[in-house]
Amino acid sequence: MRLSELAQQSGTSIPTIKFYIREGLLPAGTPTTARQADYTEAHLERLRLVRALVDIGGLSLAAVRDVLAALSRPGGVDEAIGMAHGALGPRPAATAPFTRAEAIVDQVGWEVDRDCAPMAQLESALAALEAVGLPLEDDRILTYTRAAMAVAERDVAGTHQDLAADPHPEAALRDVVLGTVLYEPLLLSLRRLAQRDAYRRLR
Amino acid sequence: MRLSELAQQSGTSIPTIKFYIREGLLPAGTPTTARQADYTEAHLERLRLVRALVDIGGLSLAAVRDVLAALSRPGGVDEAIGMAHGALGPRPAATAPFTRAEAIVDQVGWEVDRDCAPMAQLESALAALEAVGLPLEDDRILTYTRAAMAVAERDVAGTHQDLAADPHPEAALRDVVLGTVLYEPLLLSLRRLAQRDAYRRLR
Repeated sequence: MRLSELAQQSGTSIPTIKFYIREGLLPAGTPTTARQADYTEAHLERLRLVRALVDIGGLSLAAVRDVLAALSRPGGVDEAIGMAHGALGPRPAATAPFTRAEAIVDQVGWEVDRDCAPMAQLESALAALEAVGLPLEDDRILTYTRAAMAVAERDVAGTHQDLAADPHPEAALRDVVLGTVLYEPLLLSLRRLAQRDAYRRLR
Repeated sequence: MRLSELAQQSGTSIPTIKFYIREGLLPAGTPTTARQADYTEAHLERLRLVRALVDIGGLSLAAVRDVLAALSRPGGVDEAIGMAHGALGPRPAATAPFTRAEAIVDQVGWEVDRDCAPMAQLESALAALEAVGLPLEDDRILTYTRAAMAVAERDVAGTHQDLAADPHPEAALRDVVLGTVLYEPLLLSLRRLAQRDAYRRLR
């Protein structure tokens, strides 16, 4: 497709696309004439991913470059997902070892990288609860981890279907970024509404 | 108790306590001598609530004053919880009517105020998903609302136990504020970890 079509289909202006190409976030098109180049579906997927990382995820150009570099390495999708998770924030105050978080992950039996960003986020959350003396009973942890697993299974199932239909790793990563950023406020607002409803029934 | 004991038990400095009293966030103690006053358990609960709203919730003094005013009205705990939820953010972009949010709330059967802050947050989240073309299938909504309800039931059960042990509405409201602010990152980090574990099993 032409540059103008790429711009139209991605909802991105031509100057912005040229900027991404100069910054190395998007490969240049294949020249067809002295003044025109051809762009493919891969360009469109890459562009959509970059927009999601920048516009929705709020990542810096440097962070986007790191994620894309990880994506281009063999088996790098996992690493790219990890980098995206890390760059998306919140930036946790906790530093390794994440003793409290590890105890929970061991208990639940999740096999995850012990140094990844969500481990630091979990450790920060647990330390904050401990600091204000809020209880975290075993049955509460169980309720929360079960809810998290139910939601995550559904999230991943959705991504898996998309992957079957579309082999670009960019599409999977874009879904992970969008899913992390956009489904999180959904889950939190639903929890607050469910709390309001539960309080009402308690009266 | 004396002012010094109140400071020690609440972990708040004497100048800060005096500042809260001047600002009307904490009632003055009952004078016992020309230079001393007596403070009660109610002062301690109120002080803990103010600290939670300011330090953990990041509320402005004006917002704290609104929440406390609502709390002092008959049947005002619900209103105070609503105000706290509203002041805690995130400040949603959506304005009423919250058509998308109402459709979900109707479907699930939650009886909540249609204008409350979490409704605006839900509407914003749904509008953002729609804007990027991310699907929100019925079974996904079901998974998310079920997870939210399971977590909320447990949250409210915890508050109920605290209420039975302690009749101050301040304590209940403090738990709601702390629970909203501190258990939310817990839930989100657990979801991200569960996703990582689910992706790993998918490979």
